[in-house]
Amino acid sequence: MNPKHYEDLGFAKVDHHRIKRKGFPEVIYCPGKTPAQIAKIAKSIYQKGHNVLATRADKKAYAAVKKVIKKAKYHKIAKIITAKHSNTATQQHSNIVTIITAGTADLPVAEESCVSAEFLGLNVERIYDVGVSGVHRLVKNLDKINKSRVVIVVAGMEGALPSVVGGLIDKPIIAVPTSVGYGANFKGLSALLSMLNTCAPGVAVVNIDNGFGAAVMAFTILRTI
Amino acid sequence: MNPKHYEDLGFAKVDHHRIKRKGFPEVIYCPGKTPAQIAKIAKSIYQKGHNVLATRADKKAYAAVKKVIKKAKYHKIAKIITAKHSNTATQQHSNIVTIITAGTADLPVAEESCVSAEFLGLNVERIYDVGVSGVHRLVKNLDKINKSRVVIVVAGMEGALPSVVGGLIDKPIIAVPTSVGYGANFKGLSALLSMLNTCAPGVAVVNIDNGFGAAVMAFTILRTI
Amino acid sequence: MNPKHYEDLGFAKVDHHRIKRKGFPEVIYCPGKTPAQIAKIAKSIYQKGHNVLATRADKKAYAAVKKVIKKAKYHKIAKIITAKHSNTATQQHSNIVTIITAGTADLPVAEESCVSAEFLGLNVERIYDVGVSGVHRLVKNLDKINKSRVVIVVAGMEGALPSVVGGLIDKPIIAVPTSVGYGANFKGLSALLSMLNTCAPGVAVVNIDNGFGAAVMAFTILRTI
Amino acid sequence: MNPKHYEDLGFAKVDHHRIKRKGFPEVIYCPGKTPAQIAKIAKSIYQKGHNVLATRADKKAYAAVKKVIKKAKYHKIAKIITAKHSNTATQQHSNIVTIITAGTADLPVAEESCVSAEFLGLNVERIYDVGVSGVHRLVKNLDKINKSRVVIVVAGMEGALPSVVGGLIDKPIIAVPTSVGYGANFKGLSALLSMLNTCAPGVAVVNIDNGFGAAVMAFTILRTI
Amino acid sequence: MNPKHYEDLGFAKVDHHRIKRKGFPEVIYCPGKTPAQIAKIAKSIYQKGHNVLATRADKKAYAAVKKVIKKAKYHKIAKIITAKHSNTATQQHSNIVTIITAGTADLPVAEESCVSAEFLGLNVERIYDVGVSGVHRLVKNLDKINKSRVVIVVAGMEGALPSVVGGLIDKPIIAVPTSVGYGANFKGLSALLSMLNTCAPGVAVVNIDNGFGAAVMAFTILRTI
Amino acid sequence: MNPKHYEDLGFAKVDHHRIKRKGFPEVIYCPGKTPAQIAKIAKSIYQKGHNVLATRADKKAYAAVKKVIKKAKYHKIAKIITAKHSNTATQQHSNIVTIITAGTADLPVAEESCVSAEFLGLNVERIYDVGVSGVHRLVKNLDKINKSRVVIVVAGMEGALPSVVGGLIDKPIIAVPTSVGYGANFKGLSALLSMLNTCAPGVAVVNIDNGFGAAVMAFTILRTI
Amino acid sequence: MNPKHYEDLGFAKVDHHRIKRKGFPEVIYCPGKTPAQIAKIAKSIYQKGHNVLATRADKKAYAAVKKVIKKAKYHKIAKIITAKHSNTATQQHSNIVTIITAGTADLPVAEESCVSAEFLGLNVERIYDVGVSGVHRLVKNLDKINKSRVVIVVAGMEGALPSVVGGLIDKPIIAVPTSVGYGANFKGLSALLSMLNTCAPGVAVVNIDNGFGAAVMAFTILRTI
Amino acid sequence: MNPKHYEDLGFAKVDHHRIKRKGFPEVIYCPGKTPAQIAKIAKSIYQKGHNVLATRADKKAYAAVKKVIKKAKYHKIAKIITAKHSNTATQQHSNIVTIITAGTADLPVAEESCVSAEFLGLNVERIYDVGVSGVHRLVKNLDKINKSRVVIVVAGMEGALPSVVGGLIDKPIIAVPTSVGYGANFKGLSALLSMLNTCAPGVAVVNIDNGFGAAVMAFTILRTI
Repeated sequence: MNPKHYEDLGFAKVDHHRIKRKGFPEVIYCPGKTPAQIAKIAKSIYQKGHNVLATRADKKAYAAVKKVIKKAKYHKIAKIITAKHSNTATQQHSNIVTIITAGTADLPVAEESCVSAEFLGLNVERIYDVGVSGVHRLVKNLDKINKSRVVIVVAGMEGALPSVVGGLIDKPIIAVPTSVGYGANFKGLSALLSMLNTCAPGVAVVNIDNGFGAAVMAFTILRTI
Repeated sequence: MNPKHYEDLGFAKVDHHRIKRKGFPEVIYCPGKTPAQIAKIAKSIYQKGHNVLATRADKKAYAAVKKVIKKAKYHKIAKIITAKHSNTATQQHSNIVTIITAGTADLPVAEESCVSAEFLGLNVERIYDVGVSGVHRLVKNLDKINKSRVVIVVAGMEGALPSVVGGLIDKPIIAVPTSVGYGANFKGLSALLSMLNTCAPGVAVVNIDNGFGAAVMAFTILRTI
Repeated sequence: MNPKHYEDLGFAKVDHHRIKRKGFPEVIYCPGKTPAQIAKIAKSIYQKGHNVLATRADKKAYAAVKKVIKKAKYHKIAKIITAKHSNTATQQHSNIVTIITAGTADLPVAEESCVSAEFLGLNVERIYDVGVSGVHRLVKNLDKINKSRVVIVVAGMEGALPSVVGGLIDKPIIAVPTSVGYGANFKGLSALLSMLNTCAPGVAVVNIDNGFGAAVMAFTILRTI
Repeated sequence: MNPKHYEDLGFAKVDHHRIKRKGFPEVIYCPGKTPAQIAKIAKSIYQKGHNVLATRADKKAYAAVKKVIKKAKYHKIAKIITAKHSNTATQQHSNIVTIITAGTADLPVAEESCVSAEFLGLNVERIYDVGVSGVHRLVKNLDKINKSRVVIVVAGMEGALPSVVGGLIDKPIIAVPTSVGYGANFKGLSALLSMLNTCAPGVAVVNIDNGFGAAVMAFTILRTI
Repeated sequence: MNPKHYEDLGFAKVDHHRIKRKGFPEVIYCPGKTPAQIAKIAKSIYQKGHNVLATRADKKAYAAVKKVIKKAKYHKIAKIITAKHSNTATQQHSNIVTIITAGTADLPVAEESCVSAEFLGLNVERIYDVGVSGVHRLVKNLDKINKSRVVIVVAGMEGALPSVVGGLIDKPIIAVPTSVGYGANFKGLSALLSMLNTCAPGVAVVNIDNGFGAAVMAFTILRTI
Repeated sequence: MNPKHYEDLGFAKVDHHRIKRKGFPEVIYCPGKTPAQIAKIAKSIYQKGHNVLATRADKKAYAAVKKVIKKAKYHKIAKIITAKHSNTATQQHSNIVTIITAGTADLPVAEESCVSAEFLGLNVERIYDVGVSGVHRLVKNLDKINKSRVVIVVAGMEGALPSVVGGLIDKPIIAVPTSVGYGANFKGLSALLSMLNTCAPGVAVVNIDNGFGAAVMAFTILRTI
Repeated sequence: MNPKHYEDLGFAKVDHHRIKRKGFPEVIYCPGKTPAQIAKIAKSIYQKGHNVLATRADKKAYAAVKKVIKKAKYHKIAKIITAKHSNTATQQHSNIVTIITAGTADLPVAEESCVSAEFLGLNVERIYDVGVSGVHRLVKNLDKINKSRVVIVVAGMEGALPSVVGGLIDKPIIAVPTSVGYGANFKGLSALLSMLNTCAPGVAVVNIDNGFGAAVMAFTILRTI
Repeated sequence: MNPKHYEDLGFAKVDHHRIKRKGFPEVIYCPGKTPAQIAKIAKSIYQKGHNVLATRADKKAYAAVKKVIKKAKYHKIAKIITAKHSNTATQQHSNIVTIITAGTADLPVAEESCVSAEFLGLNVERIYDVGVSGVHRLVKNLDKINKSRVVIVVAGMEGALPSVVGGLIDKPIIAVPTSVGYGANFKGLSALLSMLNTCAPGVAVVNIDNGFGAAVMAFTILRTI
């Protein structure tokens, strides 16, 4: 292997080879890193000619990145920093990824998914607040959902929505449990277990609140079509 | 309090006062009791002029009870022993209790509920195998469900059915999680948490596999109407 | 289905059809929603001629709602916002719902239940602090409890109160475990498991701290009598 | 320390010094030991002039012990083997230990407690099947309970009985959760958590199904009075 | 909806509409169903002209199905019954699904996946026993893996294999945790949590031991390409 | 029962009968109660001529109580408020209760125990920081411990100290697990499970961090000697 | 990498390179493998000139291995199959590994450790049944323990022994929690958490019941001295 | 034993004998101790001529220690206070301990390990951010790792790194799970279980985030070589 494949910053070894292996550059997961560290990693990626995506970023992290990359943008609800080179004409996928939420409180996770997916060049459709307590809202949007190639379903509390959607459509569903809820929800455990135990075929699950992971899974499914 | 309120068998104090307090006689929960003990308790209840219901009973328990009470009957799927005095003209409730299952594997729990409810004089309607992976089966039966006064929903795996039913009807729903499933189902925990975290209003939950408890809750709701 | 059944605010699809299906309008669960979002949903409901109930609301949410609905009121202990149209002559139920707590620390959950039940037109009786460590306080209030049609029992710590009440009365009991306690209480898990495993018949359980859910269950039981 | 304080059998070091430190000889916990090992340990204790108590013993273990100690007796429900030297005039305590169960299914654990306590010379009173679903059975026995010096309360399912008893009497209560129950009982976890979170003062808890441990705790409390 | 969409057997409502909605007929999950019930459901599906797949089937279930469907076959390691109509010329996908296991003990789950995938017409490649304790076995097979369109990774114990594979390839990975292991594995919990928390992008997870679910997810990804 | 047995403050029913049933007045558990509520309950108890003990009290609660009861004192480490009538000549027990901690971080829990025990008239001996990582510190204090009648052992982390003490002495041991520790300590679960599973005889356990409960158990053991 | 590094049996890829990387050949973990598979893997290893170690082996596995390798031996308590080439003069380590158990029931795990360690050429000393309820048995053996270079401590129930040993000696301790115990032991969880939370320095932990893992850790520590 | 072996500060018994038993002085674990207590313990150790190490220390603790020991230093990332006597010429071990992290967010735990190890005189090599999602970064550093005598691997999330490293090298590995991650990571549980269930031989585990414990284990392994 080639030593140029990563840059060693001491506290981090930035994986510049990832874009070759995975189709997109290393992404920065911010929690546990100082703003200074985040900025240095972002700069290392950006200078290499790659675009920057930093998730779970707060305003301090954004301020630090903004100093070293002028073009950095902050997506507030998604808590994401992006920085794209102007010459990167992102190839837009014609296939649609639809991102559905059960409720309004699931928006931050859904937006993490949407912003990440758009960063990766996906064609995103949002359908929010169509949870099972008013299932007509879902049924009303079925035609739209059926036009998509991959569906991401984001839900907290009892996490029943992927099962219901999975019973109605034949697209691959990526289920994202959220920590939305209280009491016996146990910070997303309830929704997670529901989704893992779904009796509906064609559903796979990512970590609680992992909107980014769902976007990458959708990207990975779509990229070589 | 009156010493005649219970009979002391040493290993058990049979609560003959319960029918006054609760509207139905003491019920025998069989696990952990020997067939001989079960038979003695059953006899004590029956001789007092009350009807006998014994849940989670195996064939040995039934054989022991049959010896002391000729009229005893065994409900195989429900694993229930009943013995009714011929002169007890059970007053039939006109209100219907509908008992719904998500799948076929939920039948033993549902039948525990049905047989118990019928023992308590309820008017039971069964709708089985209408889980969310084929929701048209549920929708097809909605009119029937809407004619009932109380609905018991029995489901394992992700336990999503009470949420979906709860979004569609305005009757009180008693949700019964079952241990049907595998892996991250953790013996019914998944369905239990789903039901407790339901976003649908008008749902309350009993213990995992507790078909009997759901029947009694329905009885308690209906008895004084 | 009719597109007018819900209003699409983008971040939310307000379910104006719910009052038909469930007998009461959509209720706003505030956590995870911004004050602005809460106010917009409240306004959408109120303008449709329906009354507004928002649970787990903090003062910021109230301030935002107050700006768009003059009549909004804040119930501090219950953390609930209500807004009623003056022309909505709520039909008062003659049946009584009694709401019992084991201790004083259970009050916020009990008040969420009381305020919700009153919003739904129920006739509420409060009996607070009658936990099992001084059971004479409960016994002293039994006559009052027996006059009610449905009983809501709110308890934290070991959650034994529903079992004791359930052994004494023949009314349906909705048990609400609270997160009151510490250590091996594990944020309400102890009370929740106790209530699910109750040996007393006629008890069903809602989520930890879910005072609102208990009120709706009571309403659903009572509404068609 | 003195090498004679224990006998080394290779697979076990029999603690002959324990009677001095604790007031009673080493007790054999059978699970995980072969019948041959149990018999050798029993013989080692017996030959030293001490009495033998072996808990959780099955019939094979008893058969093996019986071969080496003629006087060995088997207590079937308690699953205990005892062997006492005829010359050991056990000093009988005048203080009474009352052992209470919530239900009949708790008997094996309660009997482990009773037989152990009697082996240790305690004066045991049994009150069985007085659980909270028929609390008049408990109240009827309160006078008897108040005559005891220590109370052991054995309960499964929701484990509420120690809280209720603890609210009524001023004796030290040793609470024994049992694995009796099903579903969200999680093999005794429910009763265990209830007892640990009791709001009644004067209650301490031993391991699930640990009838023996409760007996020894009672013995330890009483021995130096 | 059309009443012909399902056949009502009483204990089951066979969903004959599923092949339209999902692209494959209803599949029979055997646990909790009697052999007679399984045979009746199988017959109902087969007579409708659809092919039969029954998972987690034991030999008794197979014997019962064999009686009503001559062509039924039993896949012993996978514990699957299949029955195909001779005139169903399954269209073979040219895209390859590679199914990888960490160890030999993961074979039953992997074979459930393989047989299911082949039933659904997928082109399956097996690579077994390439776990991380001898990672050269994996590296040696990377070229083969890279020729596939979707990769299913089956692993128990620490469940690290999907993370390692996910770091090396750019195909969508469906991770299947197995209950293989002992102690702090807690019946697959360890592998499940590992896979959900993977830092490798492009991985989604199905239930513990759910080989069938992984196959359907792969099918759903591939079917519309 | 007599209506004078409790005073009804609306939010609380102060149990003035408790001193008769339990030997000490109602104790105020502060969390979840407002300072105003705490002060009112304290006043109700104090005016009845009883002494006041309020646990888990912060400074605000103390300020509120101080306003209504001049003699109120705050025990900072123990987080306890006490208020004693000058004419209550607490009868001092001659029997010693020794309170032992494994480490310095266990002090707040231990002091809750000590202050409570002293309030109840017990004769308290403190032995702090004698955990098993330097067992000679424990051995050095064995003579002192052996002079006590009851021993309370407070420990966090692995909670091994009660087992070691229980192997060395013949006094009843009340084990108090603390939430001291981190990681797989899971807020005291580790110490709790250790203590429940102790192989040392004569140990019973109270809730995590429940110093008060241990003191009352000790009082209950000692009061009738 | 070299294709000869492993032999592909289809269901297994036998890692013949492991002896180079790790210092000992691939070891067969039997559960989940058929006797036939175990025998084939064993033969593949043996024919390559390496010695065979198969753990958690039952008698059927042994019978199958014995057929293909004459020299195979079965260690009954340890449930291990070994087969050594006569010309492999195992170099005996002069450093001693002492393997300590808390109780007799821990023997199977301890013997798995001992037999594995001896297979790896270590010099093993056994000290069994020196648990903390009779700590003089441990103290009596301290000199022997201090002569060892690495200490393996095997304990179930509360798992306190590694903490006590770790407070007394300065050797590296490998702690092995066992599933010995009942109730709140939760199949070894109690001992596992105790050992992970030990306040004694110089202790690291392996999986529940993982005697083999402890032996290999000891081997890895000792091999390059 | 000698009373001079510890100094009794009331709230703490400082174990001055530990350096004899364990090879290094008592270490101060700061959480739960007041700055004043920490300073007093530090002073007691320092005045005895020993060096001071205080872990999990915040700035207030440092300020308090700095007042009583001029030479005290604060290691910010590691949150450690050290104070060394100038005349303590720490004997430098020639053997290398390599401390590896999976990601940048694991640095605080890794630095706790490094600073502790250096305090104990070990020769530390740092290799950070070589997690399995870019395994070439690890492979690139294998030669360096193979020069070490003991390897500490620090990882959060799925905790797969110790398994991968353990498959490649023959040195003892001390695995440190971190609480880095979110959702189903459950504060380090995921990484902890992964590491305990590793299929790679030669790995043992310490508590979540316990960098110090790993350093001491390494020291204990190395000190007598």
